[in-house]
Amino acid sequence: MMNTLIVDLGERSYPIYTGVGLLSQVGNYIENLPIGEKVLVVSNRTVGRLYAEKLMNSLSESGKQAYLVVIEDGEQYKTLDLAQKLYDHAFNFGLDRKSPIIALGGGVVGDLAGFVAATYLRGLPFIQVPTTLLSQVDSSVGGKVAVNHPRGKNIIGSFYQPICVLADIELLQTLPGRELQSGLAEVIKYGVISDAGFFSWLEDNMDQLLAGDQDITSNAIKQSCRIKADIVARDEKESGLREILNFGHTIGHAVETLSGYSRFTHGEAVSIGMVAAARLSVARGLFDAGQMERLIKLLERVNLPLEIPEDLEPADLLSCLYHDKKAVDGKLAFVLPIDLGEIYVEKNVDPSMVIKLLEKELG
Amino acid sequence: MMNTLIVDLGERSYPIYTGVGLLSQVGNYIENLPIGEKVLVVSNRTVGRLYAEKLMNSLSESGKQAYLVVIEDGEQYKTLDLAQKLYDHAFNFGLDRKSPIIALGGGVVGDLAGFVAATYLRGLPFIQVPTTLLSQVDSSVGGKVAVNHPRGKNIIGSFYQPICVLADIELLQTLPGRELQSGLAEVIKYGVISDAGFFSWLEDNMDQLLAGDQDITSNAIKQSCRIKADIVARDEKESGLREILNFGHTIGHAVETLSGYSRFTHGEAVSIGMVAAARLSVARGLFDAGQMERLIKLLERVNLPLEIPEDLEPADLLSCLYHDKKAVDGKLAFVLPIDLGEIYVEKNVDPSMVIKLLEKELG
Repeated sequence: MMNTLIVDLGERSYPIYTGVGLLSQVGNYIENLPIGEKVLVVSNRTVGRLYAEKLMNSLSESGKQAYLVVIEDGEQYKTLDLAQKLYDHAFNFGLDRKSPIIALGGGVVGDLAGFVAATYLRGLPFIQVPTTLLSQVDSSVGGKVAVNHPRGKNIIGSFYQPICVLADIELLQTLPGRELQSGLAEVIKYGVISDAGFFSWLEDNMDQLLAGDQDITSNAIKQSCRIKADIVARDEKESGLREILNFGHTIGHAVETLSGYSRFTHGEAVSIGMVAAARLSVARGLFDAGQMERLIKLLERVNLPLEIPEDLEPADLLSCLYHDKKAVDGKLAFVLPIDLGEIYVEKNVDPSMVIKLLEKELG
Repeated sequence: MMNTLIVDLGERSYPIYTGVGLLSQVGNYIENLPIGEKVLVVSNRTVGRLYAEKLMNSLSESGKQAYLVVIEDGEQYKTLDLAQKLYDHAFNFGLDRKSPIIALGGGVVGDLAGFVAATYLRGLPFIQVPTTLLSQVDSSVGGKVAVNHPRGKNIIGSFYQPICVLADIELLQTLPGRELQSGLAEVIKYGVISDAGFFSWLEDNMDQLLAGDQDITSNAIKQSCRIKADIVARDEKESGLREILNFGHTIGHAVETLSGYSRFTHGEAVSIGMVAAARLSVARGLFDAGQMERLIKLLERVNLPLEIPEDLEPADLLSCLYHDKKAVDGKLAFVLPIDLGEIYVEKNVDPSMVIKLLEKELG
């Protein structure tokens, strides 16, 4: 059971392999890539303990000289300081321009290791081995890499494509329930932004997904990657269309930033953000309240949070929104659903409407 | 007197304007670019005191809201820490994805501001206003941006093209003599690596160049930018040909790193490196000793240093060479002249030969 999807980006095109048992075959998969002998593997404590050995063995069996760096686990560690430490490791290990960096972990490891790969010696080959549902469907597709600024998520980063992504579905068996839910928030997002049929399929198959059914999970990942790859191929650097992938992320990032990146998982924050954007859209008369209810119901089944926490101040949230990467010339931008499977980026949202939303006077 | 050169990089193509009095017209030149109202200008103390006001006035006259950040002057400040401070300024000033960063200064300002432009919000428009001969002929052409790692120059960086370069030759009138000499080292390099005719022209016109003759200087800049732009257009990301631009930089960077980036100007270090590479090439029987003498003589006329300083240890230099960005799988690479105007990248140089070179047993 192995599936290959090519992300079509001209000379920066790369394959995403999805399947069961890929981890122990990474060495074979990367054997024919134009890379050197030295490999830097970046992982976190939890994932490293479970899976690093298998990966390192596979690499050394295929003649690579691999070096493992284990970082702390959590979004709050995705900083320029930690990037600095990885540069030091890269220097000490003597990486050269052909030495790949492999990210073995979730979004945090991928974003950080990817940023280091993008900037060390002006760019090393980058390979992703995503170990969470979230990173398999989202962060390992599309080439966004970044670290956080103390005042904003993913503020410092690049667009930098991997040369290969290997998503081993078997690894999801050890994924904590809350992490599975976090990934499902992004999976649901893909249905809302571009595929009503996929959204319905998720409604029909959510119980099996939550139970970890391998075939159903595999299909959900395949469909999610297909949708994202298609959008990224049409707008690699987010000059337009790609912004729809930020549905739920405008408020979501603000919630993450203000709660110190540790209280909510990324998917939980996105769930809160999707509901908020849906409410804004319903209040604007753009989205049907019944469709919004379907979205809310599906998120509820996954046990995802729906409301902005009471202790986050509307004024602080608003200030974060003005620093959102979609905001231009001081105008707030929001990704708003129009229908299930159809989305619209509003570039100049009335701030008074947003204040009402944040003060929970909408919906 | 205004000259336009287009660096041909497909959708990343950009113009280099060279002329007298451009500084006070920057606002007009950038008026039709797809950029927002907010502009962050980065300069250093020396240049800022002389020229920032003129630039800021030009920007505000064309309706821009410009904000000036002045950094310390010197290669030793081109660090990730200073980049971090610029991110803070960018955040506080509320830059968005359409807000350009303008570098007003030499290579240090350009490299640092360019790195921040490349990585803030995953990339802002970047405009260069180079104020030194070195940056007008070298660092503002080609899109290399970087900060230094404590143990290696330009180790952390990107390939990131500006959207426009404005080189005002008038600004060179206030350039200290040593800075002029530093720039001339790179100008001479262009002759050696790809244009014997230009090398001869430099031999004929060096006195006027040293005296600051505007027409002669303008031609030297034009020819240098033409040579570099042509090489960069054929190999933007340095996968081959572009490496020839590193002639003199292998030993040069090691000398800069080991002397703390403050003892030699970049051009002085490159001069030392060019002589060293030429000696290696003569010793290998690849380059004629008479041609090497012509190179040495021209560098001497510019008062550039020729010898690796006695107090730098060969072992330390060698260790730096192994971390050079051209080294792959532990093999030393050197850019070696074969003839004036003809160059060759040797990918696997015998280390014992390099040790002889560093111990001054060659030439």
